[in-house]
Amino acid sequence: MHRSRIGVVLIDHPEESYDAAAAFWAAARGSERRGDATDPDDPYESLAPMAGGIGLELQRTGSGTPARVHLDVETDDVRAAIARVEALGATVVDHHDRWAVLADPGGLLFCVVPAQTGDDFAASATTWD
Amino acid sequence: MHRSRIGVVLIDHPEESYDAAAAFWAAARGSERRGDATDPDDPYESLAPMAGGIGLELQRTGSGTPARVHLDVETDDVRAAIARVEALGATVVDHHDRWAVLADPGGLLFCVVPAQTGDDFAASATTWD
Repeated sequence: MHRSRIGVVLIDHPEESYDAAAAFWAAARGSERRGDATDPDDPYESLAPMAGGIGLELQRTGSGTPARVHLDVETDDVRAAIARVEALGATVVDHHDRWAVLADPGGLLFCVVPAQTGDDFAASATTWD
Repeated sequence: MHRSRIGVVLIDHPEESYDAAAAFWAAARGSERRGDATDPDDPYESLAPMAGGIGLELQRTGSGTPARVHLDVETDDVRAAIARVEALGATVVDHHDRWAVLADPGGLLFCVVPAQTGDDFAASATTWD
């Protein structure tokens, strides 16, 4: 048994457009900037969460990469959640120690990550047998 | 004065991968399929909403278009919401009668659309003066 939900929406921009896009989304959301995502080991910046405590994060991606939105599925059992979506047709693209990048059957990238939204995760995650 | 929030997350797939991707996301979410998005005038299929009543929709896009995720900003005043994000650096890419496609300062597409999540919109939209 494990739980999961779509827990974080990430707006990814390459070096070339990151700062302008981050300033835009922070202002559009009425959210303060929280860092600048310049640490290569932690290239993320959180904006105020969306409804339901769904996280909204900005990611500074590599030079020349496409601007995009991607989804994080958060879970209390990363291994089980990956096995579940693989059985449904997803493919692991990149395995990290505690999380993974996957592609849906049409090649769209998403991640499976440890639960990170606390009570909001507990309140709305789906339990899978 | 108007209100807005990020109200819908859309997973877009071209004709070539739509059906496999839609089946995957419906199963991954434990959601029933609700149509097949084959009506060119309404190429959308709703899955069960996410936390906070944020909509999760699939869109069947044109052959050869890239798979992607995009965000809809829903609002009770489309004209005012567009003017607000334009002032913050967004650009209108495509104007429809009641909604518009915009690009953020890095070229990432998003839409501004009429509020469509009812009580959930009212409960968590931000009010802008």
